Amino acid sequence: MQFELTKEYIDELQDHIEKSDEVKTFELVKDLHPADIAEIYDELSIDEARFIHVMLDSEDAAEVLVELEEDDRERFLKVLPSEDIADFIEKLDSDDAADVVGEFSEEKQEEVLSHIDDLEQAGDIVDLLNYDEDSAGGLMAKELITVNENWNIMTCLQEMRKQAKDVDEIYYVYAVDDNEVLKGTLSLKKLLLTASNRKIVNVINTDVISVKTDTTSEEVANIMDKYDLVVLPVVDPLNRLVGRITIDDVVDVIREEAERDYQLVSGITQDVESTDSAWLLTRARIPWLFIGLFGGIIAALVMGVYEVDLGINPRMAFFIPLIAAMGGNVGVQSSSIIVQALANNSMGFEGIGQKLLKELGVASINGIILSTVIFAYNYFFSDSFALTLTVSTALFSVIVFASMFGTVVPMLLNRLKIDPALATGPFITTVNDIMGLFLYLMIARAFFVIF
Amino acid sequence: MQFELTKEYIDELQDHIEKSDEVKTFELVKDLHPADIAEIYDELSIDEARFIHVMLDSEDAAEVLVELEEDDRERFLKVLPSEDIADFIEKLDSDDAADVVGEFSEEKQEEVLSHIDDLEQAGDIVDLLNYDEDSAGGLMAKELITVNENWNIMTCLQEMRKQAKDVDEIYYVYAVDDNEVLKGTLSLKKLLLTASNRKIVNVINTDVISVKTDTTSEEVANIMDKYDLVVLPVVDPLNRLVGRITIDDVVDVIREEAERDYQLVSGITQDVESTDSAWLLTRARIPWLFIGLFGGIIAALVMGVYEVDLGINPRMAFFIPLIAAMGGNVGVQSSSIIVQALANNSMGFEGIGQKLLKELGVASINGIILSTVIFAYNYFFSDSFALTLTVSTALFSVIVFASMFGTVVPMLLNRLKIDPALATGPFITTVNDIMGLFLYLMIARAFFVIF
Repeated sequence: MQFELTKEYIDELQDHIEKSDEVKTFELVKDLHPADIAEIYDELSIDEARFIHVMLDSEDAAEVLVELEEDDRERFLKVLPSEDIADFIEKLDSDDAADVVGEFSEEKQEEVLSHIDDLEQAGDIVDLLNYDEDSAGGLMAKELITVNENWNIMTCLQEMRKQAKDVDEIYYVYAVDDNEVLKGTLSLKKLLLTASNRKIVNVINTDVISVKTDTTSEEVANIMDKYDLVVLPVVDPLNRLVGRITIDDVVDVIREEAERDYQLVSGITQDVESTDSAWLLTRARIPWLFIGLFGGIIAALVMGVYEVDLGINPRMAFFIPLIAAMGGNVGVQSSSIIVQALANNSMGFEGIGQKLLKELGVASINGIILSTVIFAYNYFFSDSFALTLTVSTALFSVIVFASMFGTVVPMLLNRLKIDPALATGPFITTVNDIMGLFLYLMIARAFFVIF
Repeated sequence: MQFELTKEYIDELQDHIEKSDEVKTFELVKDLHPADIAEIYDELSIDEARFIHVMLDSEDAAEVLVELEEDDRERFLKVLPSEDIADFIEKLDSDDAADVVGEFSEEKQEEVLSHIDDLEQAGDIVDLLNYDEDSAGGLMAKELITVNENWNIMTCLQEMRKQAKDVDEIYYVYAVDDNEVLKGTLSLKKLLLTASNRKIVNVINTDVISVKTDTTSEEVANIMDKYDLVVLPVVDPLNRLVGRITIDDVVDVIREEAERDYQLVSGITQDVESTDSAWLLTRARIPWLFIGLFGGIIAALVMGVYEVDLGINPRMAFFIPLIAAMGGNVGVQSSSIIVQALANNSMGFEGIGQKLLKELGVASINGIILSTVIFAYNYFFSDSFALTLTVSTALFSVIVFASMFGTVVPMLLNRLKIDPALATGPFITTVNDIMGLFLYLMIARAFFVIF
């Protein structure tokens, strides 16, 4: 019932394609869902994929294009003439169509659009291209079923039959007034269960949640998630209904956001997958490593200042990895909690001062526990009381500093409208490494003089 | 149109509650969505929340409970008698009801269930409690509209009117045969647009994607995401239809999974929010810090072995932070790429050997670039050629080691059916810190003897 992609399947498929056996190739793909076919393309060369693509019915072929990863789609469409692309675009929902067209150069966009025969579709695409990709306008589709609130159910059903051919799935019908202003929703359930002579205005749900075209996609995702919505209507500044966003597009937004934050915290700068080429993977990873390298050089310079101390007490170096690692770990913990709270809109009413105060509490508890443990360890196993005291004091200080720093940086970035997730991962770790080291060496110098 | 929670709103609300002013309190909450009321409870004491809760109509009151965070709900329900809880439970969809009941002790479960008057609902809950929380059975609801494939559209509509009162929203009608085996789906669109004397079997979509009750929730999420589904039917081993999963529940699964992975990579052991108490935040953070502390102690012991070398060349210590940090960063990068690929089911056909080979390529490129840079730096700024050579060689070695280790550990954990995300964050960082240090000191000893 459900397709599972295997190495054997691909081998067989490539075998048929190599022999240009159209019948056997088609046999293998004809019952598959476009999403599965897109996965298959991923494993094939462009030419092999094209061999399959021309056999698909145009509806399916268009859907497959939408399901492809952006870079695969680009490579695939590059070899097709604009006329063929226009044929596919015409078959798509307006939101998917605009996404695909939006990836082209302006010149290519005009060329493809000029080949679209369905003028309404072409107009919708042009409209949608005006909106920012990361806004409700960029996510919405124009296909929806609208009825006038003054009609009765019977007229509504007739009108729906007319409009329905353009809409894949209907979950709600939207009621508008004479000025196209959104007044309410009518679920298909209600429609099926209501007597046909009743007026729409009397049966609609007027308590409808909608967003403006410029609402950010992050906010759209939060709203649909919070209110468990499957479709969300989009209105213009005059509250006129202009489109709707479906949950499947929002699931993609949620997934992409989560992946981006995850990659930032693990020090990867762009969207890569384990199946990407070694070169692409390197490019995504080396920028953060350079930050680490730079931080390491600064650490070496800081230690140069304390070279004499290290020469006298070489055992001081023993605890440098401990101090650096703890600073890094604590900093990432603090910043990731703030980043998640900002992403989920769950910062509560606490201001930056209150957050810092609480973080100070958390840091102090962690700091006291951990420095007591390391104090006990060194008290028994180290013969230098000055070192014992230095390590504990420095550990406590670095935990407090790293917590504060990890909390304040993402909050500041957020105020400056910079993505706070940039503050997680190697950046926080590197700064905290250096600061931790500096604190440690400073405290050590003081204590070794005193004791 | 949409509610925004402000400090002023809460202040006003608390003011009315304190004066026991039911009219004004109700005025403030009566038009709100249950999800908003749940957010308000978050800011109130249990007693204040209860003051509001008893005013809500029982439908809304039940929905608010579902929207609360698990620990808030637990605290809230603890003060209510089982009869009242049963009244709320009765109003919920079976999946939400089972989730709430599932959080009780077995004794309390029985007590609450015995107070539910709707025996069908009680039976559904008992059924659902049997399934693993993280499986399709644990996610599904029993409310759905099923029709026999042999009926005609007219009979179908009549039957739907009967069944519809139990189902909030209908997106699809499911067609089954005489043995309850799922045969296909009928969209409401089709139902509205098809002549009423046609037989259902002739108009259903038989190409229906379904899952078994024991499919993991992760897989359910992947399937609904991949095929852009809004509802997914669940069948038993005999393909009999037993329930359906809606996309809003799956969005929660996706969010929770992403948050868990994010927290693991940043070294936080349990689900915490920035608004949680300092104590809860400490508890979530200290376990990983202990791993870091333990790692730091081992690092100190390793360095003890090389104390003489450090005494002779104190500048060796200068590059310890660099080596440790780079090992940590590279390791987290490698493991997080694998963890994401495993979570997204996008590992491709590459086996563990091929992945390691590619990772070796990535590591070598990164390693060569970064060690060349540090070689050049030390060549100009350090007067010890042995140290210059040591740092570059050690950096290259640690990058390669950390990459391999970060790749292989999550893949191994996954084979052993342990969550691979456990391998990210402080664990990988700590092991790589120690290994990096060890490699560095070993290479240093060798090179200082030679040069």
